[in-house]
Amino acid sequence: MNQSIITYLTKKRENHLEELKELLAIPSISSLPEHKEDVQKAAIWVANALQEIGMEKVEVHQTKGHPVVYGEWLKAEGKPTVLIYGHYDVQPVDPLHLWESPPFGAEIRDRKIYARGASDDKGQVFMHIKALQAILETTGTLPINVKFLIEGEEEVGSPNLPLFVEENKELLSSDVIVISDTSMIEHGKPAVCYGLRGLCGLQIDVKGAKSDLHSGLYGGAVQNPIHALAEIVSSFHNEKGQITVEGFYDKVAELTAAEEAAYESLGITDQSFIEQLEVPEMFGEEGYTTVERTWVRPTLEVNGIYGGFQEEGIKTVIPSEAHAKITCRLVPNQDPDEIVELLQKHIQSHTPPGVTVNITLLDKGAPFVTPFDHPAIQAAGRAYEKVYHVPTSFTRMGGSIPIVATFDQILRKPVVLMGFGLPDENFHAPNEHFHLENFDKGLETLCYYWYELEQSL
Amino acid sequence: MNQSIITYLTKKRENHLEELKELLAIPSISSLPEHKEDVQKAAIWVANALQEIGMEKVEVHQTKGHPVVYGEWLKAEGKPTVLIYGHYDVQPVDPLHLWESPPFGAEIRDRKIYARGASDDKGQVFMHIKALQAILETTGTLPINVKFLIEGEEEVGSPNLPLFVEENKELLSSDVIVISDTSMIEHGKPAVCYGLRGLCGLQIDVKGAKSDLHSGLYGGAVQNPIHALAEIVSSFHNEKGQITVEGFYDKVAELTAAEEAAYESLGITDQSFIEQLEVPEMFGEEGYTTVERTWVRPTLEVNGIYGGFQEEGIKTVIPSEAHAKITCRLVPNQDPDEIVELLQKHIQSHTPPGVTVNITLLDKGAPFVTPFDHPAIQAAGRAYEKVYHVPTSFTRMGGSIPIVATFDQILRKPVVLMGFGLPDENFHAPNEHFHLENFDKGLETLCYYWYELEQSL
Repeated sequence: MNQSIITYLTKKRENHLEELKELLAIPSISSLPEHKEDVQKAAIWVANALQEIGMEKVEVHQTKGHPVVYGEWLKAEGKPTVLIYGHYDVQPVDPLHLWESPPFGAEIRDRKIYARGASDDKGQVFMHIKALQAILETTGTLPINVKFLIEGEEEVGSPNLPLFVEENKELLSSDVIVISDTSMIEHGKPAVCYGLRGLCGLQIDVKGAKSDLHSGLYGGAVQNPIHALAEIVSSFHNEKGQITVEGFYDKVAELTAAEEAAYESLGITDQSFIEQLEVPEMFGEEGYTTVERTWVRPTLEVNGIYGGFQEEGIKTVIPSEAHAKITCRLVPNQDPDEIVELLQKHIQSHTPPGVTVNITLLDKGAPFVTPFDHPAIQAAGRAYEKVYHVPTSFTRMGGSIPIVATFDQILRKPVVLMGFGLPDENFHAPNEHFHLENFDKGLETLCYYWYELEQSL
Repeated sequence: MNQSIITYLTKKRENHLEELKELLAIPSISSLPEHKEDVQKAAIWVANALQEIGMEKVEVHQTKGHPVVYGEWLKAEGKPTVLIYGHYDVQPVDPLHLWESPPFGAEIRDRKIYARGASDDKGQVFMHIKALQAILETTGTLPINVKFLIEGEEEVGSPNLPLFVEENKELLSSDVIVISDTSMIEHGKPAVCYGLRGLCGLQIDVKGAKSDLHSGLYGGAVQNPIHALAEIVSSFHNEKGQITVEGFYDKVAELTAAEEAAYESLGITDQSFIEQLEVPEMFGEEGYTTVERTWVRPTLEVNGIYGGFQEEGIKTVIPSEAHAKITCRLVPNQDPDEIVELLQKHIQSHTPPGVTVNITLLDKGAPFVTPFDHPAIQAAGRAYEKVYHVPTSFTRMGGSIPIVATFDQILRKPVVLMGFGLPDENFHAPNEHFHLENFDKGLETLCYYWYELEQSL
């Protein structure tokens, strides 16, 4: 890579920060109707920025909700094409009084820029635009073809994006999808994330008598819906932390030796988790480490349980109903629909006598993994290393980003998650910020990446 | 018994009803401070009524709360002494708009008198006064000695009565305690209740991480407090409906053959319960009938459970805490303190790794039983039969009346619960009423009882 690109970035740094502040100043809160105009404004800002650096076919596509911004540059004939996804919408800012500077003021303190969206995800979208501009203005061309897909509804679950992607498969076709909306492991430790867990969520409603009963008059003679629910819930796991739902693990892909080695090299210990979470000890599926349990093993967690009396003191009641909400995190190659069926069977066969049970599907999403040894993944690792001078971590994440699964399913191309945030940058919370060290290094990393990718794909 | 007593009752019926309406018109709601004066007024009304029929040492004893009314007649030398307990306070009346006539209007419709307190317990207290008056005015004497203890705090849990009883043991000493504050089995089926279950209540608080965790990021790697709680809850019973807490049943008195026969003769079927409660089937401790399960077997019921997300939809959280409230119904000769200890041990030894558990005692009260074959119990049965012309049912109740356990413990005398209410008379609800058939027959029954008791003790 031409080192004058780095010189360009250094020279332009103050202009970049001023421009970023402009974008951060737009309160594009997608969940609040009163900010609808601001969301539009941010879309137009992004479109203008794409136009300005030389992207073509730039368009603000209206949807049923907030718009999708598209732009492309496809002049690198014979070279790979990258689809860059990001979002320009942000989370609400309440509680406002906990912010040390205005959430849309974009104040720089202690080498960090403080604003809603600084890290999630305006800052990282902005870096992608400016990295390409640096290459274009310095070399007159790009080592790759690029397409931008920047949406305005990520913070409300991307309700309209799947349809847009489905209807614009051709427009969005690429060799690889790159997303910068995640975090590094910690300060100074870059990470490429190549897999996310999927999800399915169920509600279990247990019904006993037609109304709450006096536990003195009827206690001991009817099935208590809370007991029945506790029996169902406790039947999901055995004492080894394994999920006992028949067939649950059947399609789970085992770790490759290379992945196992990569995770071990991260040097993550249980002790650090124990201290951070203040739990007596870690607990999970026997035979797996904490990292494996959260990244590559499926889970079943009860997210909520309720029934009967919840106030202070005592009320001698046998409730008529009891409820639980459960979610499973799924891993390749589990199929959410299949898992939902297995769960339903398990619940039905573990419901004790004397009550009826009703199961409702709340949500589902497929897991996703790009093969660990995919060249686009490994190239991202090398790009980080050129700038950060430490080995890149290759990680998977326990959470689910539904839009990534959507890309995986509709576009069927490898997804590379290369984030520049830090885990403590208060996404979705007051005093969100973005560390300028990663703003600077991230810009360089992205430039390196496009050249690495040119060589790899 | 002199049949002119019956004639007297018939003659005085209208006067009695007018007097009862007076008492029912006083809104002596013990739980509402704005009715404090009304509660006093009702106490004075009762004291005057006792004085009027010839009771002696009549006194309105002030307490820290509402007063206790005492009166006695001890001129039946060598005869047994009966302590009659009842209460002149009533429950609140809301929701007022559901009442078909004013709650303190005491309207008679369809042979029932509608008013708050009609059945629970002013009506039944009034009957005791008038039955004795009938005997006194007709015969000039009584076949027994009587002491009245009529309190004004029953509906708020009798907070000041135990101390009063403790401090007035001598004054209250008797051979038998008679309470009319319960119900018959159903219309036309009188019942003598000779036992009540005791109670102990605990709260279980399970604590995991210091705060709620994202179930994507940490799911599978920490113990979920809801899972831990479900495991504890489901460990309390086995699939036979038996309680698995070690030692729980050790001191439980088994049924006598006479009791078993008495219960069987009630002819209560599961089908009637199933229809009434709308449950798919009855469920409880193997080897016992529904009646036995609710009257003479101890229970452990979870009255409430809560933790994590309870709203619509889904929230992918591992909660920091989960909670359950449990109560046990206890039977002779279980000791509440011992049972609490056994429960604590059980919970501790069934808490899975990765969480801490905290147990709080909420309440406790001893069970009580008067021996089934006690002459005072059997005499009550005979008295009912003389008036109702059907066999009396001898029952125990699944609920707990703490003041009865207090009498049992402090005064150590047999308690006879002979009620004249009906189960559907809306105690504590709008349109409380008292069936005048049982008002009439009850007055006669009480008169017969005192003569039966004279012969039996």
